[in-house]
Parts: sequence; structure tokens; C-alpha cells
Amino acid sequence: MKQFFNPKTIAVIGASRSRRKVGNIVFRNLLKDKRKVYAVNIKAELVEGKRSYKSVLNIKKRISLAVICIPAKFVPKVVEECGIKKIRNVIIISSGFSEIGRQGKRLENQIKKIAKKYKIRILGPNCLGVINVNENLNATFFEGDLLPGDVAFISQSGALGVAVLDWAIKEGLGFSKFISIGNAVDIEFNKLTEYLNEDKNTKVIALYIESLKDGKKFMEICKKVKKPIIVLKAGKTKAGIKATASHTGALVGSYDVYLSAFKQSGVLNANSIKELLLSALFISNQGLIKGKKACILTNAGGPGVLCADNFEFNGFEIADIPKKLMKELNKVLPKQWSHNNPIDVIGDAQADRYKKVLNLISKKPFFDFLICLLTPQAMTEPIKTAQELVKFHKKTKIPVITCFMGGKRIERAVNILKENQIMNFENPKQASDVIKILF
Amino acid sequence: MKQFFNPKTIAVIGASRSRRKVGNIVFRNLLKDKRKVYAVNIKAELVEGKRSYKSVLNIKKRISLAVICIPAKFVPKVVEECGIKKIRNVIIISSGFSEIGRQGKRLENQIKKIAKKYKIRILGPNCLGVINVNENLNATFFEGDLLPGDVAFISQSGALGVAVLDWAIKEGLGFSKFISIGNAVDIEFNKLTEYLNEDKNTKVIALYIESLKDGKKFMEICKKVKKPIIVLKAGKTKAGIKATASHTGALVGSYDVYLSAFKQSGVLNANSIKELLLSALFISNQGLIKGKKACILTNAGGPGVLCADNFEFNGFEIADIPKKLMKELNKVLPKQWSHNNPIDVIGDAQADRYKKVLNLISKKPFFDFLICLLTPQAMTEPIKTAQELVKFHKKTKIPVITCFMGGKRIERAVNILKENQIMNFENPKQASDVIKILF
Repeated sequence: MKQFFNPKTIAVIGASRSRRKVGNIVFRNLLKDKRKVYAVNIKAELVEGKRSYKSVLNIKKRISLAVICIPAKFVPKVVEECGIKKIRNVIIISSGFSEIGRQGKRLENQIKKIAKKYKIRILGPNCLGVINVNENLNATFFEGDLLPGDVAFISQSGALGVAVLDWAIKEGLGFSKFISIGNAVDIEFNKLTEYLNEDKNTKVIALYIESLKDGKKFMEICKKVKKPIIVLKAGKTKAGIKATASHTGALVGSYDVYLSAFKQSGVLNANSIKELLLSALFISNQGLIKGKKACILTNAGGPGVLCADNFEFNGFEIADIPKKLMKELNKVLPKQWSHNNPIDVIGDAQADRYKKVLNLISKKPFFDFLICLLTPQAMTEPIKTAQELVKFHKKTKIPVITCFMGGKRIERAVNILKENQIMNFENPKQASDVIKILF
Repeated sequence: MKQFFNPKTIAVIGASRSRRKVGNIVFRNLLKDKRKVYAVNIKAELVEGKRSYKSVLNIKKRISLAVICIPAKFVPKVVEECGIKKIRNVIIISSGFSEIGRQGKRLENQIKKIAKKYKIRILGPNCLGVINVNENLNATFFEGDLLPGDVAFISQSGALGVAVLDWAIKEGLGFSKFISIGNAVDIEFNKLTEYLNEDKNTKVIALYIESLKDGKKFMEICKKVKKPIIVLKAGKTKAGIKATASHTGALVGSYDVYLSAFKQSGVLNANSIKELLLSALFISNQGLIKGKKACILTNAGGPGVLCADNFEFNGFEIADIPKKLMKELNKVLPKQWSHNNPIDVIGDAQADRYKKVLNLISKKPFFDFLICLLTPQAMTEPIKTAQELVKFHKKTKIPVITCFMGGKRIERAVNILKENQIMNFENPKQASDVIKILF
């Protein structure tokens, strides 16, 4: 597998001269790194100013990985050539295989046979390719520089992959690896999950799954994998199952069966693509949460109520404040404080008042995680409050979730939180929906 | 009520010289418009370069509205003065009343008595005030210029109000009116909802409710109001109800009782503050949707499946494509199209292919609303596709929801949609959760 993620030398078969074509984009993406990349193009002499070869067979040096971007009907021939050239790792980006019907299925079977003959490992066809952020490798036609992170994301849909990567760049979310598996004739979730378990740059594995070829094996692997695995599974309803069949040709089992299998195997289950990524990011930042007892700290009663609602609705417990702590809180808070969890420190609270409460509750925590809400009122100090939360989190290691609510007035504070592995949610509902995934 | 939303002359009682104080911010906000605003301040001669009066009694001109921002204990006296001066409309922004306990409750009762004696209508106390975007009136201490829109938003929580307004400005969402009712000793949801029903600039009424003083009356009013009313009700769970009691002192009835009363009165129910605003905005753009049959159009199979899942899960029907239309679609689409709803036009679709499908389905729509998904792939034309959707929507009047998914690559297209009353959702789950509120 290593050669897919950190190949020494690469050949791009179908490296086009036209800047809008997939083969050209892949070639340019690969040229961004220092490793040796060869262009293969039957017509061109030069591609992007580099010498081009008619076939991989004309390249003298050893090739660790070939990336194929030519029309489907020519793919079997070049895979055969890869075999002869002893290239053992091939990404087939080209589409036009089983996803288009019987004719494509035949081509796909041909490729499988050739691959078996030469012991070639194949990723794809009909996929986006691989990005390894840690090794500066972009073997896809996605144009954009991913930010580094601890989350590895495998997508069965290339199109969804593109959308997610584009969104993640805008939102400042990072990845360790991105893999699009396409039709997955060879390398699929099982192999990749095992590989990512050993990858030192990956802390969390996020998967978008439409169908599993060997579900039983997958569950076995997941049981062994020590890193958190989060799945978004398509095909939840009848309409979704029908749509999956039209899309991939695969028969999808009942969602409930999947769900219980996931649960048994310790796989976490997300309900939307955004929740998948946010929960993965939360875990990569702060790890899993040990229990369901929440402490809510807020400068606004209304959002505090909504937060209590959302978390209790999602199965969490809004823990009671111990009597002794209550007395201590009475000493530092204005008399109209809520005397209850949510701890409403009242609208005129400055960072100092948050700090006093954080100090008191850190002494003997009666909860498993803290949710801190802030609305930007006249006296509020978003930045200083964010800094207090960062200190609290670093000192106590207690998981901290924040909902600083608003727009421009909280922007800088939210960035401070983010830089310090504290994830800010738009509102309590979003927070509770994402944190629910962890259980 | 008119004098709260479009007063001729205003007195700010407690117009402070200190720029960080509420009374100063309110005064400056009001000075932004041309109407006559008087500063009342017992100590100062000048506030923000304007002459200041010791008491409203010293002002010779008639005053339509007084805004009070002084410490609670002095409020009864100035309300009495307002009465003598024949000011019939008063906003009390000051806090320190029933929300802080018995002592505050006593002050609040005093004010009620004085108001009754002089026939003064009161908004507040402990509120943010009123913004009337249509008349350029900002009688709150919220610093920021709201964008104009058709949604009126009433919040029982001032802090939540601030957060929402700040967020809405950042997101480019507009309002007709914003009202924070605070402790609502006099003017509350009932009066305001009736008023907004007659307001020609308001198409949709969005309410954040913690507790209702006269729930029965409220339901009666809602039945009569012709404009869509959407509510976010706090106090859904035991923890939420307990938190509400700590926060407002009000006893909250069972959420289920509220829900069924809302349903009977035609009130729509949102589950989060974001959903409340997005559903209100959707209705203000495109009105209500007539039925539950969805047509999904996509250039990506995976998101299509997720969309079918999310909408069916939320009680919508992914309508079957009539046979005749299927034949027509076969003529214009590549043979590997999904042959099914979701209509997957395949990843290499340009705007032209979307257009052909839009033309065909508009002839005899087999659905109540269209959801159009787009992921920015190599051949995709987000802007042109957005333009085709705008044309389709204008011509057919069929409700259109979009999920253009991604970041930078779809930004301009999303703006085009937005400018033409088509709301783009981040992902199919968000879209289905918001559209569900309409039913």
C-alpha cells in the first residue's frame, strides 16, 4: 500500500497538454512535489514542458505508481503494459466501467484479469485518486491544496469527495489522507482501513460508504482497528436504497442491519456529510468523551435552555451541581445567577466571571464535558473568554465544546478556540447532534 | 403600536456620554435616522454633541416614544414622568426586574401600576428594544445595520437576539422588524403578532418563545393570522423546562401540548435557531410548498442517494418518473443516467444538460418541488447551471431548493441563486430538515 501514498516515481498515463483535461490536472498536481513524475502520452513530445513518453515501456527508470487517465477502452492495454514494466501499483481514474452498465463491466473484468496475472494492485477505476497531505502527494484531479490534519477520509463517491475537499479548504479543516475508491475492483474500505490504522499521521478514519463488498470482513477489521472510525452510510430509506442501486448497481442491505453491525464493531455513525467531518475533527482535536454528563456554562439564559433541551433530547444528562460547589458558586456569582446547570452567569459577565466558574468546577468535576455558550452582549469579552477556556482545557484535559453565537463579534475568539483544538459550533443543536455521534 | 415602530419623536432616558454604555449606544443608533431624538440625562449638558435634558418634563415638544436605559430602581420615577408628559409608548431596556427575583418583581409591579394609571404601553423591561428596518429605526443597543428583508423576528431572549442579528448580517440575511420583548409586562407575542399581520413589509413571522402568558389567546390569534408563523419553542425536555424556570421564573407547559396546539393553529415548528431563520427565509423567498413530492436533479450519484435518504426519512416522497417523461429523458441524457428519481445526469454534465432536463420536467411536473444538487467536478458549470435554475424557477414558479456543495468553486453560483430567491443549502440533510418545518 505504501507505494500508493508515498511512491518514489510516478507515471501519468494520459498526461494531456490541454489544461482543462483530467490527465493534465493530475500531472500538474503531481509536479508540485519534488518526486520524479513521468508523462505518458501517445501523441505529445512535451507535456507541461516535460518530456513525454509513448508508453511506460519507453521509460527506463523503475516506476512505483502509475496513474491512468485515458478513455476506458484503452485502459486494459496500458494496464498490461504496466504489468510488463513491473509497475505493481495503479490508480485508474478513467470512468466508463461497471458504473455505465454491461459493456463497461466487461472492460472492468478484463482489467481485473490482467491485474491478477501481473500482481498489480488497483485503486479505482472511476475514482478521483489519492491525496497524502503528509507527503505532499496529490494524485487526483482535485485542484486545491488541502490543509494538514489528523483525519483520513475515504469516499466511495468521487463527486462528493470534490465537494467536501473544496468546502474543507474554505472552512480551514485539514486531512492526513484522502482516498476516492470509485468502483473499487481491488483496493477498498477493508484494505485502506487496515492501512490507515498503521498510519502515524492519522488519528481518526472517516468513511463515506454506499455499499460494502464484504461487510462481515469490514466489521472484523473495524473491531481490530484501534483508531475511531466514523461512517456516513448512504441507503437509509427505500428511496435511498433504490437510488444506490441506480447509481452503483450494488444491492444494499437494510440500514438497520448496518447500524447494529456498526455498533457491535465500535464504528461511529454520522447522519450527514457535515456531521461526519465535524465529529471526525472533534475527535482528532480532543479524542472521545468518556461519559454523558454535561455541564453547560452560559452568559445567556435562552441559549442555555436550548442547549439543555438539545443535549437531553440527544440522550445526554445535564448533571446536577453538587451542594458544596453550589455554595462556592454563590460566593463568586451575582445573586441572580441560575443556581442550576446550565450555569447562567448572566448577560453582564466578563471573562473574569467565566474564569471564576471554570476554576471552581475544575476542582472536582461533576461532569464529563463542558459546553460553553457565549452571546456577544454589551459587556461580553469574547476573546478573553476564549483564552480562559483554552487555559481551562489545557490544564484540566476536560473536553470543551463551545457555542460562541454570532457573526463578526465572535470571529476572532472562534479562531483562538480553533487554534487551540476547541471546536466552535454554530448553535447548541449542531453541537449536540455532532457530539451524539461519539456515543 | 405604530409609535413603537415609527415614532415621530423619541426621548432616550439615560442617554449616557460614555460610549460603552447602553444608553449611549441606543442614542447613537437613533441619531442615524433623521427623526427628532432627545437626550435625557440628569447629569450631562451635552450628549454626543446634542443638548441634554434633566427630565422629559423639560422637553417642550411632544414625545411619541421614550426609551429607558437607567438603573432599575430609578425606572418607576421616570415612567411616572413619562405619564405626566403624556408619552404613551415606552421601551424599558433596563434590567433588574422580575428576572432577578422578589425585589425586582416588586419594582416591576410598581411600573405596571403607573403604566395603567397613565395608559402607557410598555415594551420590556429587560429587553433589547425594537428595530424597524423599513423605517430606519434602531431603538436597541445592538450595533450593526440589519439588511432589509421580509421576515419579522420576535425574541424572548435579548442575548439570543444579539447573536442572531450579528450572525444574520454576516450571512446576508435580512429582516423587516426585530423585537425583543424581555420580561413582557405588557406588550408580548399576542399583540405583536397581530400587529405584524397587518404590516405590509412583513411576509413571515419568526418567534423564539420561552413561555407564553396566555397560550390560548396566542393560538386563537395565530389561527386568524394569514401570514406564516414559525416558532422555536424552548423547554422541550425536562432539563430544558428546569432551565427555563431558573431563567425566567415561568412555569412551562409540556412541549407536546405546545406542539399539538401549534399544529392546530397552523403554526410551524422549528428545532433550532438556524432552522427557524432558514425556514422563515425560504418562505419569504418562495412561499409555502404545496405537496410532499420531490424531484431530485443531480450531477453526482452519492449526494443524490443521501438526498433521497434525507427527504424520505423526513416524510417526503421521491416521486416516480412518469413513463412518457422517462422516454424523453432517455433522448437527451447519456445512456448511463440513473433512469430514476434522483435524476443523475452524470458527472460530466454541463449547464446545457441540466437545462434539457429542466425543460422536460417543467412541461408536466410530476412533483411539488425541485431539489437540484451540484458538485463542482471537472466539467461542471456552476454559474451557468445556477442561471438555468433561476430561469426555470421564474418561468414555472415551481419551488426550487439547491444544494450546490463545495467551497470557493460554487461561491459565485450560490450568490446568483441567492439574488434570485433560491436558497442554497450546505447539504441535503440541512435542506430536508428545513423544508420539513413547512409541513
